[in-house]
Formats: sequence, C-alpha cells, structure tokens
Amino acid sequence: MGHRLEDMSASARLADPDEGISVQELALAARNHGLPLEAMRYEVTPPGLHYVLTHYDIPYADEASWRLVLDGRVRRRLSLGVDELKAYPAVRQRVTMECAGNGRALLTPRPVSQPWLVEAVGTAEWTGVPLRVLLAEAGVEEDAVDVVFTGADHGVERGVEQDYRRALPLDVARGEEPEVLVAYAMNGAPLPPQHGHPLRLVVPGWYGMAHVKWLHDITVSGTPFNGFQQAVAYRLRQDADDEGEPVTRIAPRALLIPPGFPDFMSRTRAVRPGAVTLEGRAWSGRAPVTGVEVSTDDGRSWSPAELDGADGHRWAWRGWRCSWTATPGHHVLSARATDAEGRSQPLDQPWNRGGFENNLVQRVPVVCLDPEDHG
Amino acid sequence: MGHRLEDMSASARLADPDEGISVQELALAARNHGLPLEAMRYEVTPPGLHYVLTHYDIPYADEASWRLVLDGRVRRRLSLGVDELKAYPAVRQRVTMECAGNGRALLTPRPVSQPWLVEAVGTAEWTGVPLRVLLAEAGVEEDAVDVVFTGADHGVERGVEQDYRRALPLDVARGEEPEVLVAYAMNGAPLPPQHGHPLRLVVPGWYGMAHVKWLHDITVSGTPFNGFQQAVAYRLRQDADDEGEPVTRIAPRALLIPPGFPDFMSRTRAVRPGAVTLEGRAWSGRAPVTGVEVSTDDGRSWSPAELDGADGHRWAWRGWRCSWTATPGHHVLSARATDAEGRSQPLDQPWNRGGFENNLVQRVPVVCLDPEDHG
Repeated sequence: MGHRLEDMSASARLADPDEGISVQELALAARNHGLPLEAMRYEVTPPGLHYVLTHYDIPYADEASWRLVLDGRVRRRLSLGVDELKAYPAVRQRVTMECAGNGRALLTPRPVSQPWLVEAVGTAEWTGVPLRVLLAEAGVEEDAVDVVFTGADHGVERGVEQDYRRALPLDVARGEEPEVLVAYAMNGAPLPPQHGHPLRLVVPGWYGMAHVKWLHDITVSGTPFNGFQQAVAYRLRQDADDEGEPVTRIAPRALLIPPGFPDFMSRTRAVRPGAVTLEGRAWSGRAPVTGVEVSTDDGRSWSPAELDGADGHRWAWRGWRCSWTATPGHHVLSARATDAEGRSQPLDQPWNRGGFENNLVQRVPVVCLDPEDHG
Repeated sequence: MGHRLEDMSASARLADPDEGISVQELALAARNHGLPLEAMRYEVTPPGLHYVLTHYDIPYADEASWRLVLDGRVRRRLSLGVDELKAYPAVRQRVTMECAGNGRALLTPRPVSQPWLVEAVGTAEWTGVPLRVLLAEAGVEEDAVDVVFTGADHGVERGVEQDYRRALPLDVARGEEPEVLVAYAMNGAPLPPQHGHPLRLVVPGWYGMAHVKWLHDITVSGTPFNGFQQAVAYRLRQDADDEGEPVTRIAPRALLIPPGFPDFMSRTRAVRPGAVTLEGRAWSGRAPVTGVEVSTDDGRSWSPAELDGADGHRWAWRGWRCSWTATPGHHVLSARATDAEGRSQPLDQPWNRGGFENNLVQRVPVVCLDPEDHG
C-alpha cells in the first residue's frame, strides 16, 4: 500500500447484491444521524434532533475572530465579522432541509456512502442576512455567472483533498423567492457546532448539500464552478462516466410518524385494534404541496389525508392527518405527497449511482395485536 | 405469521460470521448517534453532539403537567412537579456517560443490537436534586432493598411490552459519592427531548442504562427488582442461559481525537510529516484515571501521555495529550487508560453475548502522506 491521498481514498462503488452494510458505512451512520420519526410531532425540529451530515470533521470555530469574505467578480470586497452580520436587518425563515442522499440505503444496488433510510430531514427557523443584500453591497460585475461558497471542513474524497465547496447560479444566489440566507441562528439560538457554527448558508427548497456550513468565503465567479462537490459528486448518473445532471431542489415527499409503539430491535410497530390517528409531514422544494394520500394496504388503495395550511411558511413541511381503524393483522402504511406542479412520489424504486433525490414512498410495517394480547 | 407481541419481537441473537450490518441495526444507528470524535475537543459536550440511545420512541412530555411520584416502601408518598423540584437546592455535576454497548459492532461474533463502534460517550453538566434528599423526605422503610425508576418510553423488547424501567440498590440510590441526581437541566438549559425532557436520572460513574430518561415514577421496593432491563437485558453472559452478572459501572477507557483530516468514506486519517499533537479524553466509573499511555505502532510500544488535572470533576473525563513525529507511511494510533484501582484496557477482545462493558483499546489508522503529496 502506498501512502498518497489517492491510495487512502477510494472511488465511489455500488454494494454487491448480498453485501450487508459495511463497517465504513456504519462509521458514517454512527457520526451522522437522522430525525427520529416521532420527532415530526414538532413543527420546528429541536436542534439536536434535526438530521446532520458532515462530510469531513466538524471544524473548530471561534465566533469572535470568524470572518466572512465576499470577493471575486465584485466591485468592493467585503470582510464581515459575525457581529457585523448581526447588525444587518435580520430575516427569519422556516425551512425544511433534506439530505440529497436520503433513502440511499434502501436502493438495490446500494450506492456505498452515508446509508440513510428515510429520516435525513428536519425543519428549523434560520435567522440571518439575505445573500442578495450582501451581493448588492459588494456590487456584482456584469460577467458574473456563479457564486461559490467555501466552508471550513477539510478532508479528502475520492482522492481529492478539499475544503467543502459548492456554488449556486447567480440568479439563485440573489433570488428573492426563495431568499438565500447567510444564517447565524437556528431556532433563535447560535448555530450548534454540527449545524455550521458560526455561519452557514441556507438555500430554501434545495437539498442539504447546497447549505454550506462553517461558511467563511463567498466568491463571485466569472466562469461556471467546476469543483468536486458540483461536477463530480451530487450529480444524477446512471453510469459512472455520465456527465450527469446536477442535484438541486428537493423532490416531494411525505413521511408518517410511525403509530403505536416499537419493537426495540426490528422497529416494527404495534398498535391495538380500533381508531388510530395517522399523521406526518410533507414537503417539496419544487412547488407547494397540494395533497397527501395515505395507504394502509401496502399501496393498493389510497385515501386523501387532511392537510394543514402553509401558514405563510412556503419552504417548510406541512402537517397532515387521517384516521384509520386498525384490525388485528399485519399492515403496511404509506403516505404520498403531490405538489402544485403535479410531481408525486414513485411506488417503484427510482435509481441513480449516487442514490440522490430518492423519494420512493415510505413503507411502515405495523402489527395490529389481538385484542387480548397485552404482552 | 401471527399478530401477537411475541411474533413481532425476536430473541437476542449473534450475527453470522460473515454477516454485514443488517438493515435493522442500521435503523437503530440512523436514529441514535455517537459523539463525533473530534467533538472531544469540548470539555463539556454540546447537547446535540452527546451520544443518544433511545430504546423505544422519544415520548412527548408536557413539562407543565409532568409529575414525579415517589412511593412504595416510604412513609410519605411524594408527587412533585418540575417547578417544585427546581425549588430544592440545586446540585450541578459534570458527568461522563457511556453506553454499556459501546464497542459492540467491533466484536466477533457481533451481538445484534444497537451497533456502536467506539463513540457512544459524552460529558454534560447536569443540574438537579439529589435523590437522597427526596428519599429522606419521603422516609424509606426499614425493609427497602431496591429503588425502581420508570421512564415514559414504551415499547416491546424480546416479546416483553414495557415502559423502560431500571433499579438501583438502596445504598447506591442514597449514596453521597457519587450523588445520584434527578436532573432537569443539561449544560444549564432544560433537557432536550432526546435526553429525557423534562426529568431524568443521572447516576455518575454508571453506564447509560442506569440514567433513566423521561422519569416519572420512583418506587422503593422491599424485594429485589426483577424487571426486563435488570434481569434479562444488561447482564454479562457467555451463554444465553447464564444468569449473568449485572452491568453497573463504567470500565476505564481512553479515546483519541483522530488527528489530521479524514477520507469521507473510509474515515481513514491523513496527516503530513512532522510534529502532530495527539490528544483525547479518558474516564473510568470505577476509580479515578491515573494514567494514559499512547501507542503509535499498533500497540507494540507505549509511552505515557500528559494527563490534565481532574479540577474537582471526579465523574468526568480527563484530557490528555502527547506529541508524535509523523513519518510517511501507515500508522495505527491507540490510547489506553489505567485507573486508581489498577484496571486498564485489554488489547485482545473481551466478549459477552450482550456486547457490554467493552473497553478494547481504540485503533485509529492514519496515513502520513509523502511530503510532496498535496492532493
């Protein structure tokens, strides 16, 4: 074995047909975590329950000395401390964020990476300064095309040593709906370390890879950004040598709060016969969710659920509920969201090599116990 | 398939020799999470980074209406709201907590349960009322032997439907060193939902299973407690039909903060040639840590590390550090703690059917890159 970066950092691969989850995948699952689905009861997710994915290490950040530099194709370079950012008029937005790789571990074949099942989601209230305000203050040059964001987390991925870095097209970066934020608070408190302390980007409607954490540099670029996380990772590809399409906005999805109580090991749910309220959340980064349907017979039939109002929170999930009369036996519960542009969730597995943008409907196996069974 | 609790809830098992991590184990790993090891840089762990293990679901808790009842073999039954508990003199203790199953996923054969590697640990400052104060107020009867703690999380485990419930011997429950707490704050803020909001038990020096979360009932018992989590789970057994010994206090362990930077997928660390500071934390629930040794050659030779003072925090981990001169090539780093009673960490795998109390020394593979290799 050599001792060069390329020797320690393998190419992307697919798991063999009968390959269990590897210790490498488990090491990622032990560091990162999803939203325990019962925590969907909270409209705004408490910070420690919101899903977390960190590519490399959580960097150490000293808020007092942190600087955010905005430069590149601008007329005036900005360098701002966190206190200076807090002096701008603050904007607070409720945003549902989902990892682009959510659902990956359920795919066949399974792309070997962070092995999410369905739980890589959360909703927070982010407070910060609109990026468009900072870009206007710096004065974007005519030839600008992309805005590149650099975080402080450092590592190697498929042989490429890098700081985590992503870009947005200029029109998205200075858009008003959604409004991209440079955020310094989550649910009204300073960002926790794992959510980007002291500064992160928030791009409502986009998958998590766009919301660069530990943000310290914004560079306006006159050429399209071609970095690893943009051109190599986070592309929709069927084959390894496809150029692929970029991963951008969140596809519609609904998730159920699993009813009843769980078996510790299998997570199978038990309910008792009678009326059971089924509830959950639904979201789409493409267009507002307009409907949620529920199935209690493993997708054979569907009934509409009652959908909460959006309450002005266009970029956050919406609650939904319906009632179900449970009868003894085995059941599989599912929910399916549809958005205003007619997008819905597939019943058969979509697939791409990265395991991105997967919004296959969730299946929640439930055992309705015999009436006399009390353990 | 039947639809009784016993049909949906399997017995404990060991993984087959070449069985990868199962989707069931992954579902636990996606809900629960460890401490990202770089977060050992914080002497007190931020709440969202502290390890979390929830047996069943995180229950919904309304702090305003929550009651803690203390009854059983006492002269006076107590029923206390959270505000009433806050009116007692508050005690704040810094405590390192570790899951009894930490290290389980590295065992051969692997007990199938929550698949921890080495990261199921964290240190917090817990504020609450000493349990001995509440027991004294209630007046413990002469025939009392155990104190039983019931949490609000409800589920089924190996066929047994239950609220999570554990006991302590009376002398431990009313001990002064360590002092068991009924805690309502973590790091100075209300308990987060996943850490037992609004009340939990804190038993300094004991593995996590003793620190009952969502605590609502304390029953003083005149007979030894024989519940599932005491008599069936959390026992040290070689064979399934052994009676086994109970899991109690935390065995000594040291962990390294992995130096350098990681490969995203393998988590292998890269460092560059030259001086590298190695640092980490060490703890024991049995007796104070008196020494930490470090190996940079996969356990062939060991050198003492410099150990921080305990600073009056007897039940919290201690920091340690040493310097290493990295040379190009592959290295395996390890650290090993010893406590005042002479206990240390094994270099060969200890094993029991539950995968409990495992304190095998950690191995951190590191590649020291060639000087000219910059990715």
